[in-house]
Amino acid sequence: MRERDIVGREGRFIAEGKVVLNVLLANPAFALESLLVLENRLAGLTGQIKLCPADVPVYCVARDVMDTIAGFPMHRGILAVGRRNDRRSSEELILAMPDKALAVVLCGISNHDNMGSIFRNAAAFEADAVLIDETSCDPLYRKAIRVSVGAALKVPFAREGSIEAIVTRLQSAGFEMFALTPSGMTSIHDAKPARRTALLLGTEGEGLPKSLLENLQTFKIPMSANFDSLNVATASGIALSRFSRFSGF
Amino acid sequence: MRERDIVGREGRFIAEGKVVLNVLLANPAFALESLLVLENRLAGLTGQIKLCPADVPVYCVARDVMDTIAGFPMHRGILAVGRRNDRRSSEELILAMPDKALAVVLCGISNHDNMGSIFRNAAAFEADAVLIDETSCDPLYRKAIRVSVGAALKVPFAREGSIEAIVTRLQSAGFEMFALTPSGMTSIHDAKPARRTALLLGTEGEGLPKSLLENLQTFKIPMSANFDSLNVATASGIALSRFSRFSGF
Repeated sequence: MRERDIVGREGRFIAEGKVVLNVLLANPAFALESLLVLENRLAGLTGQIKLCPADVPVYCVARDVMDTIAGFPMHRGILAVGRRNDRRSSEELILAMPDKALAVVLCGISNHDNMGSIFRNAAAFEADAVLIDETSCDPLYRKAIRVSVGAALKVPFAREGSIEAIVTRLQSAGFEMFALTPSGMTSIHDAKPARRTALLLGTEGEGLPKSLLENLQTFKIPMSANFDSLNVATASGIALSRFSRFSGF
Repeated sequence: MRERDIVGREGRFIAEGKVVLNVLLANPAFALESLLVLENRLAGLTGQIKLCPADVPVYCVARDVMDTIAGFPMHRGILAVGRRNDRRSSEELILAMPDKALAVVLCGISNHDNMGSIFRNAAAFEADAVLIDETSCDPLYRKAIRVSVGAALKVPFAREGSIEAIVTRLQSAGFEMFALTPSGMTSIHDAKPARRTALLLGTEGEGLPKSLLENLQTFKIPMSANFDSLNVATASGIALSRFSRFSGF
């Protein structure tokens, strides 16, 4: 069974492993549609299965059946099909954010590992939402969910429209934009987070569009001039640790 | 050909891709032993091949030959066998460090992705050395080198002995230890780097040994109490950005 035959239809996605399943069951914005469990994992999932709605089928299978369905060895032994009920637009998410808020804005993030890691960091530093442009990849892709340790099922997000449209909406809602780029004007160590802060991150290769950077305040993480820039997920961690309410600033 | 039949013998390793090859050729601590290049990549490597010593064989092959040798599709089209000439012990590396220094100390890091990412961050923030205990994995494993974007061939390192022995040697050399742990006493935002700073990082699962933490000053990255801790590589990036000379502290 191929992931693309399941996902993308009515907000469906594949979740792997117990940790991710727990996040899925705990968040009413997502629904569990079915569960496929390796026979030797069943006993350890009694609590989770009790939480499943009565109409959710739980299939318990032998290893060869599971590996055949997955198409590769499924070491985790737990595969869930989930559905996303939260279909709020980026505009609705922005309206729903608290007065003091931290938003993460992503432009052109095409690597699922990076997407998952950014969500993990967004959850760790309690970002209120992740707003993703239409050129970025889907945070509900199986690998992105796994790398996020379930954070992709925890932090509210919307993925739609152009980066320019997202930025305009945030600015209208009183968000101060902090665009992170190696050529940024101000050091992140000198940046003062605003009451409503939006952290804007682009691809590792191309970076953020020049036309966009010209109209925003830009920040950089000071580092060696002799080495390739940081991984974008690591950069998100550094910036979020600085801008989150946990920093004490 | 299996990696384990080549590496670990006389400090040999496998390096992939042009970026990593450039780092390898630029660092006299490493020697290139042979180069395997896909025929359509040869023209783009003229500069690199001129830098190869005359006795280094360069094999130029068709795609099916390369994939057969590698055992998997080799998209990058460039495979090098390298040898590490720098066999300094952790003691020698500590002696060689400048008066003002930043060392990264790793305990029980077993994941090659994390190892590579930590080296990438160490290079980005110009750490002087990485000291790795004997229970951690090899930064010269193919995947670790690739994820490090070559930094594993750039930042001096030693991998030997117990974590206790490494810490004792650093303390004798006047290094102040900063052990990063979720239960740390002080926030990293309040930490003041010392003239000689050693940043100590442990595994994501177990963390640093309790017996070690009892005798060191401990630090934490303040974050949500409701979410799994950060990835250790991300944590290294946050801590290095704070402790490096680029932070302005």
